[in-house]
Amino acid sequence: MTGPAPAAATRARRDRLRGLLCTAGLDALLLTDLINIRYLTGFTGSNAALLVVADDPEDSGDTAEEAGDMTDGAATTADTGRPRTRFCTDGRYTTQSAAEVPDLPRLIGRPCDRALLALAPGGSVGFEARSVSVADHAALSAAAGEAAAKPELVPTVDLVEQLRAVKDAAEIDALRRACEVADRALAELIEAGGIRPGRSEREVGLDLDQRMRVLGASDPSFETIVAAGANSAIPHHRPTGAELAVGDFVKLDFGATVDGYHSDMTRTLVLGPPADWQFDVYRLVHVAQAAGRDAAVIGASGAQVDAAARDVIAEAGLGAEFSHGLGHGVGLQVHEAPSLARESPSTMAQDMCVTVEPGVYLPGRGGVRIEDSGVIRPDGYHVLTLTSRELCVL
Amino acid sequence: MTGPAPAAATRARRDRLRGLLCTAGLDALLLTDLINIRYLTGFTGSNAALLVVADDPEDSGDTAEEAGDMTDGAATTADTGRPRTRFCTDGRYTTQSAAEVPDLPRLIGRPCDRALLALAPGGSVGFEARSVSVADHAALSAAAGEAAAKPELVPTVDLVEQLRAVKDAAEIDALRRACEVADRALAELIEAGGIRPGRSEREVGLDLDQRMRVLGASDPSFETIVAAGANSAIPHHRPTGAELAVGDFVKLDFGATVDGYHSDMTRTLVLGPPADWQFDVYRLVHVAQAAGRDAAVIGASGAQVDAAARDVIAEAGLGAEFSHGLGHGVGLQVHEAPSLARESPSTMAQDMCVTVEPGVYLPGRGGVRIEDSGVIRPDGYHVLTLTSRELCVL
Repeated sequence: MTGPAPAAATRARRDRLRGLLCTAGLDALLLTDLINIRYLTGFTGSNAALLVVADDPEDSGDTAEEAGDMTDGAATTADTGRPRTRFCTDGRYTTQSAAEVPDLPRLIGRPCDRALLALAPGGSVGFEARSVSVADHAALSAAAGEAAAKPELVPTVDLVEQLRAVKDAAEIDALRRACEVADRALAELIEAGGIRPGRSEREVGLDLDQRMRVLGASDPSFETIVAAGANSAIPHHRPTGAELAVGDFVKLDFGATVDGYHSDMTRTLVLGPPADWQFDVYRLVHVAQAAGRDAAVIGASGAQVDAAARDVIAEAGLGAEFSHGLGHGVGLQVHEAPSLARESPSTMAQDMCVTVEPGVYLPGRGGVRIEDSGVIRPDGYHVLTLTSRELCVL
Repeated sequence: MTGPAPAAATRARRDRLRGLLCTAGLDALLLTDLINIRYLTGFTGSNAALLVVADDPEDSGDTAEEAGDMTDGAATTADTGRPRTRFCTDGRYTTQSAAEVPDLPRLIGRPCDRALLALAPGGSVGFEARSVSVADHAALSAAAGEAAAKPELVPTVDLVEQLRAVKDAAEIDALRRACEVADRALAELIEAGGIRPGRSEREVGLDLDQRMRVLGASDPSFETIVAAGANSAIPHHRPTGAELAVGDFVKLDFGATVDGYHSDMTRTLVLGPPADWQFDVYRLVHVAQAAGRDAAVIGASGAQVDAAARDVIAEAGLGAEFSHGLGHGVGLQVHEAPSLARESPSTMAQDMCVTVEPGVYLPGRGGVRIEDSGVIRPDGYHVLTLTSRELCVL
């Protein structure tokens, strides 16, 4: 299912990271967050570290090179002595890492973070302060003291996360395919009569999840939400044995993971002809969602985009019933930067991929949320989730 | 699907933890690892912290009490002023935490760790050094300086993990049910003809996973391994599009998660009459696995149990083809203490739940692993995975 990111893409990402290292005055960055390592190398295993050296002509620009494996201890034998950008994993992943990370020198050893720190340049070496535990930091500090180059460990925060907010072409393509799997799975589920009175929320969720897997998702993006009737008024409801009934709103919030990228979408359907209040609430959320999409343009703040949708709902007197933020970035994590919310520090930039998902929840009666994943382009927000947003009556 | 741990069980676990705090000279422990918090409270949400106060008569022994919610800031109004064991989560989990953690004072606020630290007693307050990141530790240290009682933060390692290695009755029951789901799913898969030539590894894996979910698993315990033919020689193989063929070994390593507890089992079948070498390898692993189970008795070291199985394989001249440890603890995590391996620091104790899983892998030809999950009782190792270990020819 999952394919490695193209080596040219991951190399370009490492080059962008070097720009941030330069700005931060760092001679290298020791990465231990596995999602950030996947982003920078394509590696999908469960144990690794990566040392990105700021001044490394051999890993910059177009200098392509096939690199081999070396085991811990033999790391410097074939070297010029100059610190290099290196990847480390353990023996379980020797074959896999050779396929996924062909363009970096690979070290096989444990623990990966300390094995790489021993090969770091002198000067300031950043580490990921949100990923490294206090226990691991104590071990790293001791290793730094024993390393030949005597690197000084410097805490950093969100360097790679900041890069990840803006997607490259390979990432947008993976998200597009993830959205397509989710769209198709929902269409098949509806076509097969899978959303019908008498079926439980849990059965519907399992059915939808299985369809996504058969269509190529490695997994759902998160625990699929199926919320029927009054349960649809709970923003994040776990599917239960409750049975769908005529007259219910049925809210489905779900996504597919494809090549590590997570789609995220919500549709709210109704079983049988909608009551007037259902029609009114749906129409309100529909208008608010369109306003949010229209506002998601380059240069807008996350707070402005949120306000564009929120104001529509507030003007209808239901501001208190929209109890969460408007959206969030999607990518290697289903929730990542940027944030679209009242107190968002983010500014929209080209090729950010974000959700737009206003909702109105009426306790005891029901709720509606409509959510797309999409990408911010020069001419506006392009949805990647292509299922119709019109009210679907089953 | 998931049910909360009984309050009496979680209270008893907190009392056992207090014994460790006393030994370590700690006045309290601030817990942030969500699995440890689930173990000590029954809470299953995605954000929480727990402060366990060493001297807390109100949370000890049989003094049962129904506790209410309070929001951040109002935490001390209903208090005697004496520091108490408390649970904290955020507003998304107000209802859920009231149901899952009825017996502890609950605080609703963010960030949970700092909200609880502000209410900690003076003296030494432990934190989980493997769970707290360097960034979170910096914020906690600042909060400790501002807290009324001026607690001193002390790093701790594996206090709760050490308790979790020995299971109580509720945990063994959950594991038994998780193993039952896995056993039934495999039996149904075989009965339905789901393991047959022409089907891909991936199709077989999806089928098995779906059957576990329908039978009540919240999820597989880990990514199910289906490895056919030469792929069965790869200890941890990810299912591919490769098709099963007559003459193949088919190795299935899988488990079900039920109420948060993870079963883990491996069976290796053969499609059509086994070749002599297949029969011989299977018989060898079968004998080694029995030797491992027989050796898993109270007081044995993890290294001794490992050696009992490993020696059988080594005597047959295939020691190098058994390339991993013999087993590991199973519970709220699929890999946890104790360890059954050559360099294991563990000693077997009553009510530890461990896997026994020797394997022999012949590159390019195929491999066999047989794995049970079971519990160590006074009269020996009781398997919880009840599927036959005899060679199954399909």
